[in-house]
Amino acid sequence: MVEKKLTDKLIFASNNEGKIREVKEIMQDYGKEILSLREAGIDIDIEENGTTFEENALIKCRVIHEITGAMVLADDSGLEIDYLNKEPGVYSARYLGHDTPYDKKNQIILDRVKAAQGQERSTRYVCAIAAVLPDGSEYTVLETVEGLIAEKPAGEGGFGYDPIFLVPEYGKTMAELTPEEKNAISHRGKALRAIRSLLEQVGK
Amino acid sequence: MVEKKLTDKLIFASNNEGKIREVKEIMQDYGKEILSLREAGIDIDIEENGTTFEENALIKCRVIHEITGAMVLADDSGLEIDYLNKEPGVYSARYLGHDTPYDKKNQIILDRVKAAQGQERSTRYVCAIAAVLPDGSEYTVLETVEGLIAEKPAGEGGFGYDPIFLVPEYGKTMAELTPEEKNAISHRGKALRAIRSLLEQVGK
Repeated sequence: MVEKKLTDKLIFASNNEGKIREVKEIMQDYGKEILSLREAGIDIDIEENGTTFEENALIKCRVIHEITGAMVLADDSGLEIDYLNKEPGVYSARYLGHDTPYDKKNQIILDRVKAAQGQERSTRYVCAIAAVLPDGSEYTVLETVEGLIAEKPAGEGGFGYDPIFLVPEYGKTMAELTPEEKNAISHRGKALRAIRSLLEQVGK
Repeated sequence: MVEKKLTDKLIFASNNEGKIREVKEIMQDYGKEILSLREAGIDIDIEENGTTFEENALIKCRVIHEITGAMVLADDSGLEIDYLNKEPGVYSARYLGHDTPYDKKNQIILDRVKAAQGQERSTRYVCAIAAVLPDGSEYTVLETVEGLIAEKPAGEGGFGYDPIFLVPEYGKTMAELTPEEKNAISHRGKALRAIRSLLEQVGK
């Protein structure tokens, strides 16, 4: 099932369409074709049992690199809400149930932070990107973007918690930004650009 | 006890003289003064309870960053000996006792691999370097260098397992190389140059 010729490809170890779209936008001039797991013909469940964002991203890379030998990137990202003791944190995808739609999750979060005012609503998106290369070298980058939990959901762009993540500089939620605006400031955009720079710099 | 003005400094979270010397050699043109923990006035025992090299290096960075707010780099490195099921691996420093001198550890290893011939003596040095920056962003790089366990210890340079780590291209052990030769090919040299590139590239 796995494609044989993967040496000129870069596998992004995810099937999350929102993430794949962002990765393809940001890495489009990197010079390698980017494949999702599905596009690489890989159907596998990977247990993300790390305790940090970096660890979870590396776990995914290593498993897929073991199978394919290809260059593999993976992401692990989440939302830390200070008022909720930094929940959902590293468990963001599983928070409130893996299958619960995000509009429902976002409403539950808004209810839980209802009493919080102003800076009490501070939050940050965290994104770790890991890369494992054919020669076995490994890289991780973790970047954050600070924001506030919005009063109510707004916007149709992005995905996940974006409709309730207010970006103070713009006075808009992440979901109200254009893809270009979001990629320029987002945790995932910053982390992907840093890892791309690193890979270019080390000549891999 | 902790110095106040650390913003133009880079703390390397170790007191291992061999490592500190290599870091200062490789990062000397980076533009920041490099301090060991002792030089930064920090006296602390950090429990390295991660299960991977990257995790242990990040744990050290985070603790020291929490205390100082400074840019912190840390290393976790080890030797994987294939004939010994990749031991000592992530437990390299504690292997055969934390206080056991390396000449004794190296002799014990030579005894344990005595029956191994040729490629059966394959081994690799692994080095993870982590960086935590004042803005909270985090980076890790893991690099390896392949070698063979030597027939007997040789050389006075380097430190740790270097006298029994044979570098096939040179026909010498790591401990027989000059510091310049070692830094050019070593796991730590490669990882430090990669992280320096990354930090320069992201402008931090």
